[in-house]
Amino acid sequence: MPRAVREQQMLDAAVRTFGQRGYMAASMDEIAELAGVSKPLVYLYLNSKEDLFTACIRREARALTEAVRAGARPELPADRQLWSGLTAFFTHTARHPDGWAVLHLQARTHGEVFAGEVAAMRAEIVAFVTQLILAAAREAHRDPDFPEREVSGLAEALVGAAESLADWANATSGVTARQSAATLMNFAWAGLGDLMAGRHWSPPEDGDAPGVQAGRTSPVR
Amino acid sequence: MPRAVREQQMLDAAVRTFGQRGYMAASMDEIAELAGVSKPLVYLYLNSKEDLFTACIRREARALTEAVRAGARPELPADRQLWSGLTAFFTHTARHPDGWAVLHLQARTHGEVFAGEVAAMRAEIVAFVTQLILAAAREAHRDPDFPEREVSGLAEALVGAAESLADWANATSGVTARQSAATLMNFAWAGLGDLMAGRHWSPPEDGDAPGVQAGRTSPVR
Repeated sequence: MPRAVREQQMLDAAVRTFGQRGYMAASMDEIAELAGVSKPLVYLYLNSKEDLFTACIRREARALTEAVRAGARPELPADRQLWSGLTAFFTHTARHPDGWAVLHLQARTHGEVFAGEVAAMRAEIVAFVTQLILAAAREAHRDPDFPEREVSGLAEALVGAAESLADWANATSGVTARQSAATLMNFAWAGLGDLMAGRHWSPPEDGDAPGVQAGRTSPVR
Repeated sequence: MPRAVREQQMLDAAVRTFGQRGYMAASMDEIAELAGVSKPLVYLYLNSKEDLFTACIRREARALTEAVRAGARPELPADRQLWSGLTAFFTHTARHPDGWAVLHLQARTHGEVFAGEVAAMRAEIVAFVTQLILAAAREAHRDPDFPEREVSGLAEALVGAAESLADWANATSGVTARQSAATLMNFAWAGLGDLMAGRHWSPPEDGDAPGVQAGRTSPVR
């Protein structure tokens, strides 16, 4: 069997073991047995438990990023792009719960080096979502001065909401990827949609009644 | 000086050191020096680096939870409650950036025991937000069958968005707590507000034009 194929089998076994048992509790014996290879071969190919974990993080991060990019089709209108990107994200995290646990839980709870690997992937996704929101704002032509800083904040909020929902969906039986994506669209799109149309939520001045106001010209930023 | 006062000084120094240097790099020498006490006294009072870190997590988690609870005033209408709760949250995380770094970054990147402490606090905040959304839905009387599962998902999304924005705000100079809260209200409230009024975002059937539709009777859940 070619080395590349063997390595993928080892990574499959490692992602499953790290995702289900946690990084600390996972043993190289268990991973080798699950991969159907000897433990010395795992060390020969992937060097150490740390290096094996890093290889898992990189593979799962690349797969997730590619799934989201493939899902958000730039020819669609903004809400369809967001819907298809979110559906792709939740479909991927639902199909690869161990990979998601490695990325969002294990990699962030076992030291700065692993956390740094995931932070790089996250920054790439936030930048991608920021561009998507900026493109939507340009498309709407309603608020050309939409400040990049607020767009960055919105992208951070959306990514954080999606991460949190993916954890919850994977821990709750019977929640489908489509339902998770619909929950987030329900939560987020009307808000973003109003913003694109120049309608901001306005915080109360003391004693004022707040609410979403159409055509507000000086939103709080 | 009474022991309780000394301990608070040690915890102040420890939160600052863990938050700024990270758990691994922080040294007990540095913490003792910053607290103005001897290192043996830190060990005498707080036993070990692990126990000191756990004490920091518990103190900061309690302070954050109390700040959010105090901020969300139940006599207000739902959007005002959310606004004041979010403002309280972002004010607290902006004023205590080291405490927030301990809770949201350090405690989650150094093993399951510390991560478990933070997970308990987070579950409490999600439950609190879930009750807030359920109360708002009851108040609106528009969708009495609003399923608890979808409300849980919305609460997870809101908490994830707030965590992500707090990280971003603390890493970005010149972003105020009020601006962070306004960004999240802009992002979230119009969406939640539409939901409370029975308007769901509807995912596209193949070929359909999507959008927020008033009075949709069979939302995707």
